Amino acid sequence: MKSSVSRTAVPFTDVKFIDNFWAPRLEANRSVTLPACFQQCEDTHRIRNFEVAGGLTEGAFEGIYFNDSDVYKVIEGAAYTLALQPDPELDAYLDKLIEKITAAQQEDGYLNTYYTLVEPDKRWTDLPVRHELYCAGHLFEAAVAHYRATGKRNLLDIAIRFADHIDQVFGEGRLVGVPGHEEIELALVKLYEVTGEERYLNLARFFIDKRGYSERDYCQDHIPIREQSEIVGHAVRAMYLYAGVADIAAYTGDKALFAAMDRIWEDVTQRKMYITGGIGPSAHNEGFTVPYDLPNDSAYAETCAAIGMVLWNQRMFLLHGEAKYVDVLEQTLYNGLISGISLSGDRFFYVNPLGSRGEHHRQPWYGCACCPTNVVRFIPQVNEYLYATSSDTLWVNLYAGSEAKVTVSGQEIKLVQETDYPWSGSVKLTIHPVVPTSFNINLRIPGWCDHAALELNGQGIEPPPGENGYYQIWREWRSGDTIQLDMPMPIRRIAANPRVQADVGRIALQRGPIVYCLEGTDNSGAVRDIALPRDRELEAHLESDLLGGVMVITGKALRPQPVEWSGKLYRPVSTDREIPITAIPYYAWDHREAGEMVVWLPETTALAEQETPE
Amino acid sequence: MKSSVSRTAVPFTDVKFIDNFWAPRLEANRSVTLPACFQQCEDTHRIRNFEVAGGLTEGAFEGIYFNDSDVYKVIEGAAYTLALQPDPELDAYLDKLIEKITAAQQEDGYLNTYYTLVEPDKRWTDLPVRHELYCAGHLFEAAVAHYRATGKRNLLDIAIRFADHIDQVFGEGRLVGVPGHEEIELALVKLYEVTGEERYLNLARFFIDKRGYSERDYCQDHIPIREQSEIVGHAVRAMYLYAGVADIAAYTGDKALFAAMDRIWEDVTQRKMYITGGIGPSAHNEGFTVPYDLPNDSAYAETCAAIGMVLWNQRMFLLHGEAKYVDVLEQTLYNGLISGISLSGDRFFYVNPLGSRGEHHRQPWYGCACCPTNVVRFIPQVNEYLYATSSDTLWVNLYAGSEAKVTVSGQEIKLVQETDYPWSGSVKLTIHPVVPTSFNINLRIPGWCDHAALELNGQGIEPPPGENGYYQIWREWRSGDTIQLDMPMPIRRIAANPRVQADVGRIALQRGPIVYCLEGTDNSGAVRDIALPRDRELEAHLESDLLGGVMVITGKALRPQPVEWSGKLYRPVSTDREIPITAIPYYAWDHREAGEMVVWLPETTALAEQETPE
Repeated sequence: MKSSVSRTAVPFTDVKFIDNFWAPRLEANRSVTLPACFQQCEDTHRIRNFEVAGGLTEGAFEGIYFNDSDVYKVIEGAAYTLALQPDPELDAYLDKLIEKITAAQQEDGYLNTYYTLVEPDKRWTDLPVRHELYCAGHLFEAAVAHYRATGKRNLLDIAIRFADHIDQVFGEGRLVGVPGHEEIELALVKLYEVTGEERYLNLARFFIDKRGYSERDYCQDHIPIREQSEIVGHAVRAMYLYAGVADIAAYTGDKALFAAMDRIWEDVTQRKMYITGGIGPSAHNEGFTVPYDLPNDSAYAETCAAIGMVLWNQRMFLLHGEAKYVDVLEQTLYNGLISGISLSGDRFFYVNPLGSRGEHHRQPWYGCACCPTNVVRFIPQVNEYLYATSSDTLWVNLYAGSEAKVTVSGQEIKLVQETDYPWSGSVKLTIHPVVPTSFNINLRIPGWCDHAALELNGQGIEPPPGENGYYQIWREWRSGDTIQLDMPMPIRRIAANPRVQADVGRIALQRGPIVYCLEGTDNSGAVRDIALPRDRELEAHLESDLLGGVMVITGKALRPQPVEWSGKLYRPVSTDREIPITAIPYYAWDHREAGEMVVWLPETTALAEQETPE
Repeated sequence: MKSSVSRTAVPFTDVKFIDNFWAPRLEANRSVTLPACFQQCEDTHRIRNFEVAGGLTEGAFEGIYFNDSDVYKVIEGAAYTLALQPDPELDAYLDKLIEKITAAQQEDGYLNTYYTLVEPDKRWTDLPVRHELYCAGHLFEAAVAHYRATGKRNLLDIAIRFADHIDQVFGEGRLVGVPGHEEIELALVKLYEVTGEERYLNLARFFIDKRGYSERDYCQDHIPIREQSEIVGHAVRAMYLYAGVADIAAYTGDKALFAAMDRIWEDVTQRKMYITGGIGPSAHNEGFTVPYDLPNDSAYAETCAAIGMVLWNQRMFLLHGEAKYVDVLEQTLYNGLISGISLSGDRFFYVNPLGSRGEHHRQPWYGCACCPTNVVRFIPQVNEYLYATSSDTLWVNLYAGSEAKVTVSGQEIKLVQETDYPWSGSVKLTIHPVVPTSFNINLRIPGWCDHAALELNGQGIEPPPGENGYYQIWREWRSGDTIQLDMPMPIRRIAANPRVQADVGRIALQRGPIVYCLEGTDNSGAVRDIALPRDRELEAHLESDLLGGVMVITGKALRPQPVEWSGKLYRPVSTDREIPITAIPYYAWDHREAGEMVVWLPETTALAEQETPE
């Protein structure tokens, strides 16, 4: 059993966006991304592999050995989508697809089209590389989502049969091994949560306990998790693993796991995270390098890793009830995560650099399609991060125009949030209990907010002493009670720790949770020579017709006169020209004319000049 | 014979400072540095080694194997001093000292107290390391200076005997080898110039031609000089070598040597020279590393190397007649060279960093005493760099209050310069030919001066078209003719080539030829966190009582509020405080309360912060 003091997320089925920020994104995901991803899965024969493995179609396996996972991830996204908006056609399509998966499942429950079609005798012989358990995990997540969204068991039963099979293969006295790409751990916990079958929880714990006895730091398998203190290796794998570990910690109360999670969280958030929330700077290992190594142009910062960062930080919040985890979740969500998908929903970044000379663009698909299929399953679950509950407390974590239904102190409460977040920090929360009900409302005060003002039913009140980053209000709530929270959103110049060599002498602009960038198209075609001295004033205004409606930042900055350094070692500083600049949200770059982009602006043109020579 | 188009320096015997900048330095050198250096040579038994080798005293060799050279260098300095100011006591002391050297010279002319006393059978067996030829070169330089200053042959005859011996030992068909530490090449040319003995010139050429057939780039012996393009290895050795090479090029017109000198000069001045004129960034090899590697705190920039830089650039000017060589000479002279000696004349820097945390101070002497004994011989020859002549042209290279006697177009001309240079760029030159004489006066317009105004006998004239960095005025000069040259001296912010990583985002202050620094004692004890944004105004004023009278620069700059970065990866920029600053000439630092010093000031406090963590 989970500890009674821990928190539970209010599920995606019970929260609905009614805003101009998230609602259009969920709609683009439903109407564009989802069909596009299914079409790609058809066109690339990812789905046909199931037909062939099931004997429904003649043919051979095609593609990469972990392609099954993409199909499962798109199904998971479709399930969330169905929960928010009934769609008989999609429902029927899923049922037909599940029939193909059913056919591909072997008599003993085993399910992996690559092994079944290519190396049927080699099952479970190459755990570090071949991703059978990773694919199984995505099947379980899809099955749980489909069951929760539709109540149907057709996919869930496949998952249960496969999970039972894995549970018979792996274990003490049987096969002892761990997956090269983690994922099954958190998925088994989900499967346990809908089935109540403790074997799945124990199997997840088995995969966590047996980790750390190889040399492979690439997949966090170098030392036992309870002894780990530094984040290493492949960033997505690390995130999936630690999300699963946090789940297990929640159910077991294992203090050594708690402590390891806390150490690793400090390492990544204090030394190895981009200001966008992106993680994993290096393309070499798709992952981590050394502390403070955060190059901008060559940042890898995979979209999947940002998604993993949200998954893990949500669980860390649920464990600890501290706003700092939601701060990281929000920073990632609004910047380095949604940058991964175009506003139209049909183009994806695999990597998310913080600077570009103009040659980095979103693509409709990738041979290794993990990012598109991660986006399509992530976007429709964003609503699950707004609220959480514990016995007598409602936790308000994210602010967005929305309606929700939650249960606190045993009573069902309807909640309405009205806000233009993330462009405005003004939030009105209206509470509608069925009967007057006493409980806490914990309002998260974001780390970027120095002081928020509060009104209760129109009366200004002294913000109650915050704890762990929350304002806490206890009272007997009656239907129609309102809370008005005002979080000022000045434009903030952010500096990086001086140990981050790439950002020395530079600042990034942030307003509310949104990190900004400069794109060439708004700034005479070139942005990499622009300096923004600290004393130049900036202002923000909403551009409703730009990029789906964004708050832009404008002001004056400096551009150096061209300097000829050839054959010169010293020369008088060049004169600078004052120029107007326009900054847009980082997530929205690369939607217009291709060109340069920067996030970290130098404060002197002398630093801008530095970029030119190679 | 030297080419007829080449130039000849007006010798130290014919130029006398009458200013407040150089005259006090020469006086301190005469009255303090010179006796202190002789005393050190006595106390450390450098002089006693000659007595022992000559059988005048019982004992053994003491000290380092190249200690003879220090005695010769102090004698050289004493000789220049005698020429400027008769001193019977010093004259007599020198004669007694020369008696000891005479005694130490062997029957065959060989002279080296280390080998005579320690390894008499090993002469010339360790040329790369043991510095016999280096010591011989310093003997020759001392002897030539003593002869020119006093007309006495007692030291010159010793030098001639030793040179003849070396000429019998080395040569084609005899011993073929080159010294590990160059020096003898330029010294043999000097000996040739006073004796007319061509064997000495040929021997110098031999040592140059035989260079480049070992693996030793440490002493520029890795490839033949005519094929060299990059400056490498020990900085002092390189300077002494190339000074000798320039001399040989002047006498031989060897185009391959000219071309090599030009390539190497570009390499050092465009890629490997500090703004102070200092060279050789690394303590490891007391020399050069890779292009643009110019760290400030750890700069080696040996005082001897700065002296060598002046020696070489003077010869490059004499070869080419271009002001750019004198620009480098002047930059070095007024900054990274005279920083090597205290104003009082009794303390020396061996290395001259461009930044300090407060732990670098001048010392009264060093075990390896090359720098003190180089300073004592260099300061009283500075007057030799003011003027040069070619057949019908007077070259005015440095500006300083002075009187001189030169011969141009066959006539003796008296010159009087009145100026407060380097604090003012206003120079009045009065010309007194014995009879009216037609010749060119070439006035050097320093590289730091954008436009100079000119008056002839009180009438403004359009500056004549400059050539090679000079204004040229041809006329029949009559006694009392005056030239008034006005070179404005604004405070200049200098940037380094962006490839110089150490100076990125930073500027140095320069006014006229003087590079400035900030010292803690003038700036509330700390200077390494001060930033000087480009738009802050600065002004200069003369402080007559400070540091012997210096122009200081004052203005407003920024200092950041203290920032706590522990456990933080990103945070809003700190606010800055505007503070007053005072900058003093770099050469004059470390004369007062010990403390921090910086030359390169960041333009944003974000860069200042960068220095703090390690």
